[in-house]
Formats: sequence, structure tokens, C-alpha cells
Amino acid sequence: MRVEGVPFRTIRPLEFGAVEIIDQTLLPHAFERIVLRDAEAAARAIADMQVRGAPLIGVTAAYGLALALMRDESDAGLAAAIDMLAATRPTAVNLRWALERLRVTLAPLQAGERAQAAWRLAGELAEEDVAVCSAIGDHGLSLIREIAARKGDAPVNILTHCNAGWLATVDWGTATAPIYKAHDAGIRVDVYVDETRPRNQGASLTAWELGHHGVAHTIVVDNVGGHLMQHGMIDLVIVGTDRTTARGDVCNKIGTYLKALAAYDNDVPFFVAAPSSSIDFAIEDGLREIEIEQRGQREVTHMSGLTEAGHLETVRITPEGSHALNYAFDVTPARLVTGLITERGIVEASPQALARAFPERVV
Amino acid sequence: MRVEGVPFRTIRPLEFGAVEIIDQTLLPHAFERIVLRDAEAAARAIADMQVRGAPLIGVTAAYGLALALMRDESDAGLAAAIDMLAATRPTAVNLRWALERLRVTLAPLQAGERAQAAWRLAGELAEEDVAVCSAIGDHGLSLIREIAARKGDAPVNILTHCNAGWLATVDWGTATAPIYKAHDAGIRVDVYVDETRPRNQGASLTAWELGHHGVAHTIVVDNVGGHLMQHGMIDLVIVGTDRTTARGDVCNKIGTYLKALAAYDNDVPFFVAAPSSSIDFAIEDGLREIEIEQRGQREVTHMSGLTEAGHLETVRITPEGSHALNYAFDVTPARLVTGLITERGIVEASPQALARAFPERVV
Repeated sequence: MRVEGVPFRTIRPLEFGAVEIIDQTLLPHAFERIVLRDAEAAARAIADMQVRGAPLIGVTAAYGLALALMRDESDAGLAAAIDMLAATRPTAVNLRWALERLRVTLAPLQAGERAQAAWRLAGELAEEDVAVCSAIGDHGLSLIREIAARKGDAPVNILTHCNAGWLATVDWGTATAPIYKAHDAGIRVDVYVDETRPRNQGASLTAWELGHHGVAHTIVVDNVGGHLMQHGMIDLVIVGTDRTTARGDVCNKIGTYLKALAAYDNDVPFFVAAPSSSIDFAIEDGLREIEIEQRGQREVTHMSGLTEAGHLETVRITPEGSHALNYAFDVTPARLVTGLITERGIVEASPQALARAFPERVV
Repeated sequence: MRVEGVPFRTIRPLEFGAVEIIDQTLLPHAFERIVLRDAEAAARAIADMQVRGAPLIGVTAAYGLALALMRDESDAGLAAAIDMLAATRPTAVNLRWALERLRVTLAPLQAGERAQAAWRLAGELAEEDVAVCSAIGDHGLSLIREIAARKGDAPVNILTHCNAGWLATVDWGTATAPIYKAHDAGIRVDVYVDETRPRNQGASLTAWELGHHGVAHTIVVDNVGGHLMQHGMIDLVIVGTDRTTARGDVCNKIGTYLKALAAYDNDVPFFVAAPSSSIDFAIEDGLREIEIEQRGQREVTHMSGLTEAGHLETVRITPEGSHALNYAFDVTPARLVTGLITERGIVEASPQALARAFPERVV
């Protein structure tokens, strides 16, 4: 999508052996790009969340594997690089999915062919992600169109949580794709952006990307969504998913479940933009079967931002000695999900509907 | 309650014409006390939230009125001081309740008697608040005792939102009173403290006061409570209320409603510590009848804390140019409230039960 009027992607190959990413840890205060030239840099970019979001992590890992193979194309080199890259984030299913997909194609090849092939496959993965997000955008657009037709001149008010935006993918985003498609089609949308503590990816990343693309938006703290829905101020909720189960339970950024409850209580449609790569057909019950990543307490106890003087500063916001717990995700049960917006259309959050939509994936 | 081992109150008269408060805007990073010597200082303390919390605001306003009358005891002086003090916070019902209560007693008195009488009444109001909170503590303690008996050696896990602690009252707090009583009685409690964006009163004030009194606690961001309840990690939710309707709808800090939904969805008891002074028997439907205060967007876009070097700094955490909305409260419908812990016992959140418990208040 656009940054200061110029179309951008989150990751792009510059030349064989060099991949450019955006250092997302500096957003929204600075827009800086980094060139990755080896697998260690790619692994660091994933672990340090310079790139984040399930699809972008997958593509970055794929390029990371290609970079690793440029140095060592042996079977041992392939296995070691996959292990290193897979260990960077414990929860993201796309990461392991992307690496496995490359491994299956690369393993039968000769050393000497693998680096080139991996580089090409990483590029294909990126293009595929753009196509998937664009298709999700088209299907979600139909939902927004329906509401817009009902509301006449008033904007369609959409709440989103965290960043399932183009910054989390290669382009378009998942939850934001319908929003960008609607905006580009001239439909008035107003996006309520949850701050999304503790890492504030809503208030920093989603607000930043919507603003740069020219989409009207309002930042709210995570506590506000229920109040907005009680007062008819939200027409539609669209969130992303890090992992979707075979029956449609959704594991997404912590706090998603609370918004799903509020949507359900107020009859607000709650949709999840779920590329099929996020669906894990091997698990059913998200609450019992998904282990939730716990991250360091410093993300809760400290906060970074820009001082009046214009430099980045980190401040402690909690009392000295108070302990914090930092669960990164929660699970929204399928019963609270109005529908999943997949690249093959809108699918009911049920085992039957998901199996019908993706018969080749059923295990 | 205790600060570094020493029993404290949030407000105390030093001598006729001087009242000491804690500057709560500096917490949790600095513990500083301020002496109020005129009504303007008292009004500023309320408006700038150096004192906050419905009961403490009421007592501070009462002392403010006494300070005003020391300068001008005339009818006009009385009326002007009440107007000024009442205008400091639009939502707090206790503020107007406390001022009206003083007015009724003071108006018939001669100039010459009013300042002394107001000073005495403010002191009585403070003592009454301590007694009310202590009674809420005793009634709430019975709930905690029951759970503790069931859990054996394991701690009772209690979630609370915002600060309905002793810092919001004169002593004990409302939602925290049962917790302090349980702790002082040797019952193991572990308190999950919602950060409570945007002003972070949970992570700053509640964590600070629990820590100083020696109560085990864990700070979580506002997004986490649903996940904790889904996983059986919360035995009991206790929150405060700024305004309670005749049928038991609860207007409390923004985000309370989301926790009530999660508690309901997971069969976790959700109790509201509601001193009868918070109950407005003139309104029924909290969602339709209570106007929600909107505060400045800077509370959302900026954050203050302590730098590594140990000085207070404010940083902007959102993109330049992104707009924020800041609703301060929301309404939790009575259907989600397991019970109200009042100074007269635990009362069902229904018009009938509330009218039975407080027959003299029914309008």
C-alpha cells in the first residue's frame, strides 16, 4: 500500500542475495528500511519483530533460507538453517508451514541448485501472499458494500484489533484488505483502531498504515470497543488470526476474545480474515490445544515513544518491584465468530464448512 | 493502609485551614504530599486528578468548601464555592452528593458558624467513608473466605480493574477493602491488576498500593483478563463503581463491561463494590441515561513514566496526525453483575433488591 503516496511492500528482493525489509520496531516514529544479506539477519529480524505478522514472517523465513543456502547448500546446511529459522517465534504456524514447503521442494535438489530455487520459491511465496490477501480483500469488500448500501452517506464504522494490516503481510494485509479495497472503491470507511497493548501494534502500526494510505481512522484504547458497540458506533469487526483450528476457533492477539464477546452481546458482525495458511486442520479445540506464547514482562512495564524533543525514549510505567504477566494471544471460540474471510470466500466457523472449503487440507 | 510500613490515609486535616493530600499524579514513581489551604487548591486537586476516586473526591470537595467559607461565609460565598467545586468533574455523583449534604446543614447557619461547621462535617464525611469501606470489606471478605475454604492452600485469584483502592477513598478502598481484609486475616490472595488504559490507574495506583501493603499481585494489560478467565485463573472479579443505577447497572472505568462479559462467559463471579453513595436511585437504565465523560486525546496518544536515568518523561506513542477518542467510563448492565457489595451487605443487582436494602433512598 502507499507510504507518502508511493506504493510499497513490506519485503522485496533487491538483487540475488539482498532483501529489503522495513524495520517495523521503529514505526510509527521513523520509516527505515534494512537490507538482509544472510540468514542470521533474517532470523534476527523475525525474533526481534522488525518483521511480524504471520504471512510476512513466513516470507521472511523463506528468503532467510535462500540466504542460508547461498553459503551452504548441503543437506546439513539446509536442515540447520530450517531449525534456526523455525525457532525464532514459537506460535506462528506460517513460519513452519513456509519452511516445510520450501524443504519439500529443495531437499530432492542437488547442492548447486538449491539457493537459486529457494530464492525463486521465496518470491513465489510473496506473490502468492499478495494474491491471497487481495482475494480476502475482495470477499470482505462485499460485506462492507452491503453495510454501506444500508447506511447511505454515513461512513461504515469498522473496529479492528492489533495489526493484521499490510505491514503484517507482503501487501494489502488480511483484516485491512477489505478496508483498503473499500477505500479505493470510494466507499466511506472509518476505522476504530484498538491500541493493542502491550506492544501497541494497533496504535502504532495500523494507525500509521491507514493514515499513510489516506483511510480515516480513530485510535481507541483496548477498553473502549465494548462501549462503542453498546452505542451502535461499530458496524463491523474485522480482525486477523495467527492460527485457526479445524472448527474455526481463532487464536489471535491477546484481547481479541473480549471484542468478540462484546460484538456477540451487541449483535455486531465479527469477522476474521483468515488466509488458509493460518488454518491448522490438525487441531480442533483452540482453548485446550494451543499453547499461548508468554513474552517478557518488560513489554508491559515499559513503554517507548517520542519525546517532545523528538528522540525515542523508553519509560517505566509501573511501580518498581511489581511483577507483570504477558500472554501474547488468546483464543476466540468459533461460536463467537460470524464468519471467516478466506481467499476462497466467506466460510462459516464450523468444521463442516471449513472442510468443504478446503477439502485438500483436511487431515 | 500502609506505605512503607506506616498506616496512611489519602486525606487528613493537619490543623484548622490545612488539609494534606497525596499527589496521586506522581504515583507510582514518587510519593509526595501536598497541603491544601484554599478552595481553589482543592478544586485544582480534583480537576487535575491529584485526588481521584468518587469517595475521595467527595471528601476533598467538602474540605474545599470549608476552606472557602473560612474566607467568605456569606450565602453568596457558600453558593459560589459549591458551584466552583461541583464543576470540577462532570460524572462523579459523589461530588455533588457531598456538597449538597453540606449545603443543607450549612445554609441555615449564621455566617460566623459556617466554616467551623463545614470543617467538622468534612471530617465526619471522611470517617463515614472509612466506616462504609470497612463494612464493604467485611461483607466482601465472606466471599473470599468461601472461595479460600474451597481452594485449600492455593491462593484466591482476584481480578480488579482500575483503582477502586484506598487511594480512591479515605482508607481501605471499595473493591480492595475485601482484599485487604482477607490479606490481614491471613488468607492467601493473588490480585490480577488490569493496567487500565489510558490513565493506567491499575498498573500505577492499584499495583503501588497493594505492593506497599504487602499484597501479592500481578499486573496484566487490559486485554488479558478474558484469557485468564477462560483458563480458570481467576476465582473472583471485584471492581468499583462511579455510579450505580436503581436497577444495578454499573458505570465504572472504561473496560469494566468487557471484563463483566468475560466473567459471565466463564462463570466467574463478578462483584461490584458499591457504597450506597454511588447509587443514583433517580435513574434506571445506565446505558441510556448516563452521559459518558470524554476526556482529551492526549491521555491516549501520550504516556508518562520514569526513564532509565530516573526522571519523569512523557512520550508520544501514536503516529503524528492520528486522532484518538477517549471515553472515560462504560456501563455494565445489571444482568452481568453477580452482586453489589454495599455497606449493608451483598445485594442482588435488581431494582427490588436495591430498594429493599436502601428503602429510605428510593425516589
